[in-house]
Amino acid sequence: MSESAAPEGPMVHSARMERAAVAAAEAGLAGLLVTPGPDLAWLTGYQPPVTERLTALLLAPGRRPQLIVPTLERPDAEHAPGARGLTITGWPDGQDPYADLVPLLDPRGRYGVSDNTWALHLLAFQRACPGASFGAFTELLPMLRAVKDAYEVERLAAAGAAADAAYEDIVRLRFAGRRERDVAADLARLLREHGHSQIDFTLVCSGPNSANPHHDAGDRVIQDGDMVVMDFGGLKDGYGSDTTRTVHVGAPTAEERKVHDVVREAQQAAFEAVRPGVPCQEVDRVARQVIRNAGFGEYFIHRTGHGIGVTTHEPPYMVEGEHLPLRPGMCFSIEPGIYLPGRFGVRIEDIVVCTETGGRRLNNTDREILVVR
Amino acid sequence: MSESAAPEGPMVHSARMERAAVAAAEAGLAGLLVTPGPDLAWLTGYQPPVTERLTALLLAPGRRPQLIVPTLERPDAEHAPGARGLTITGWPDGQDPYADLVPLLDPRGRYGVSDNTWALHLLAFQRACPGASFGAFTELLPMLRAVKDAYEVERLAAAGAAADAAYEDIVRLRFAGRRERDVAADLARLLREHGHSQIDFTLVCSGPNSANPHHDAGDRVIQDGDMVVMDFGGLKDGYGSDTTRTVHVGAPTAEERKVHDVVREAQQAAFEAVRPGVPCQEVDRVARQVIRNAGFGEYFIHRTGHGIGVTTHEPPYMVEGEHLPLRPGMCFSIEPGIYLPGRFGVRIEDIVVCTETGGRRLNNTDREILVVR
Repeated sequence: MSESAAPEGPMVHSARMERAAVAAAEAGLAGLLVTPGPDLAWLTGYQPPVTERLTALLLAPGRRPQLIVPTLERPDAEHAPGARGLTITGWPDGQDPYADLVPLLDPRGRYGVSDNTWALHLLAFQRACPGASFGAFTELLPMLRAVKDAYEVERLAAAGAAADAAYEDIVRLRFAGRRERDVAADLARLLREHGHSQIDFTLVCSGPNSANPHHDAGDRVIQDGDMVVMDFGGLKDGYGSDTTRTVHVGAPTAEERKVHDVVREAQQAAFEAVRPGVPCQEVDRVARQVIRNAGFGEYFIHRTGHGIGVTTHEPPYMVEGEHLPLRPGMCFSIEPGIYLPGRFGVRIEDIVVCTETGGRRLNNTDREILVVR
Repeated sequence: MSESAAPEGPMVHSARMERAAVAAAEAGLAGLLVTPGPDLAWLTGYQPPVTERLTALLLAPGRRPQLIVPTLERPDAEHAPGARGLTITGWPDGQDPYADLVPLLDPRGRYGVSDNTWALHLLAFQRACPGASFGAFTELLPMLRAVKDAYEVERLAAAGAAADAAYEDIVRLRFAGRRERDVAADLARLLREHGHSQIDFTLVCSGPNSANPHHDAGDRVIQDGDMVVMDFGGLKDGYGSDTTRTVHVGAPTAEERKVHDVVREAQQAAFEAVRPGVPCQEVDRVARQVIRNAGFGEYFIHRTGHGIGVTTHEPPYMVEGEHLPLRPGMCFSIEPGIYLPGRFGVRIEDIVVCTETGGRRLNNTDREILVVR
């Protein structure tokens, strides 16, 4: 895999659609039905609103990709980056778009659909074509978007570097005496200053709130002696960032330092386990074993990671039961944590890409416990 | 229907869940499966992120509502406004949540699912419970969220008044010489100043762009002589606004004035057609007939309206083929338009609530063509 990236353009989308159609054929599918969301954005560059009006891309091996859109959205579709590789047909309000689709489908075929296709649309596909069968994209073709090319890895690396720069800036600011949501607002501003166009989350979890891995950022005033988990990310130039660091306001206690060390060691061990062919669940197991050995097993209450690409949160998942083998180009988070209810929590997260020779981190700020003011 | 609104609280959510379960039973359903989105927000006040991790509310007649959530999101779920009326169970990462659901379902029952439930989840329901059948919420229970109570109508009226206030402000500002996106940014700011917490869209379509009903707001610099369609809305206190006015930079030509008059008359005629028992499609037909009679039939290329509530865009739809009868409490847009390709377009939109005696507009700014600078 070359690390020199070609610019994105119409050819990229045509190549991705071709690759998806070939992968569908290899998986024994008659084709893929792609509705608005990250799959459609990745394949065509088209990002229409997600509504009850059907927009669907049909990819079938050996056929020109066909995009069905509401008539009034057709001008927008025709300006999408990948439009030149598509046949676009419009359907007017009051007409049944599912009936238009039937003649294009193999009446006994098996089709992949986007994970996030609305039930309203899937049920209509099933009704319109009762002899066909449907399965979710990530179950049938889990590797398609999961394996990034060199161009995509560079975009993810740039997003990661921008998130790192935001972290370097935020820890210079004051924490004690300010509300979590004020620090979160600063984080969002800094991510934008470093080139993010979209902020997906800026969790700032202080003191006992740090023990809730899904706490957002609230009105709690941060105090001296607090552990503070900051988990933040978004999109830069169409690709995602997601990183977590846990800092401490003033000097940490020996216990706090110990818990932080265990999480850091778990994260490092999981990172070192990354190489082609290793099942995703192994990354989770390695992190979990370090935490279990230290006696904190029951306090690591979530999976170890998730994929990242044109979204900040997607397959593959680093979780028990996920047997998919890692491949060069897969990008995902490694984010173990320990959460002591009512007291404090620690999480450390980097985005990692699997290369031929092992893992490469796309987040590179210091992972030691950092003391802030 | 009383116009004095009770405040929203836990009882509201319990009452809504009870009402939904009764409606499900009346429709011959074994229950409803509700995933994150507007249905879940309306029923429980809980608004978790929409992800591949299953969160599902099961409503079944005569049974206590049951909410299944990822373990790490359980603390948030327990703080939801409607949580007291729910039994909440968590499932940890690595466990199959669909298997947990099976013992709760009637193996041969028919279930309604939220329109926006991800295909990934619906396909897993179908696989886990192959003897059960599933249908989309709006097809099985189209009236449930569509009919608003007095409390909801007041919230929608307040959102509409705020959007009107933003319009009154924006038309005092300069248009000529500024980019569409700058006017759009002003509109967003004004909506926030008038109490909106979320901006869903601020379309500013000038000159030839006004002929594209789904043009957003771009880099085109607005010029003297332009028609400008402004279509904007969002959420205020959890309920939606959506209104459109078409203004003109400087004096309009006779033809521009004529087209604007036709749209205004069509909008008025459709408004006057609103009363309980009238099918939704009749509202569309009345507007369309006015435009057709004036010779512009082929240039009205979208349906006449859509419902509004906890979202800015939902059933019921004012469209040919929608036979649902209007009922007191239904709230929806009436927004006919004429679009002359490459030249200009006009759209006028108000939110209207159906009352016992006819329509009541929730947008009340002037509908005559307004000249701006």
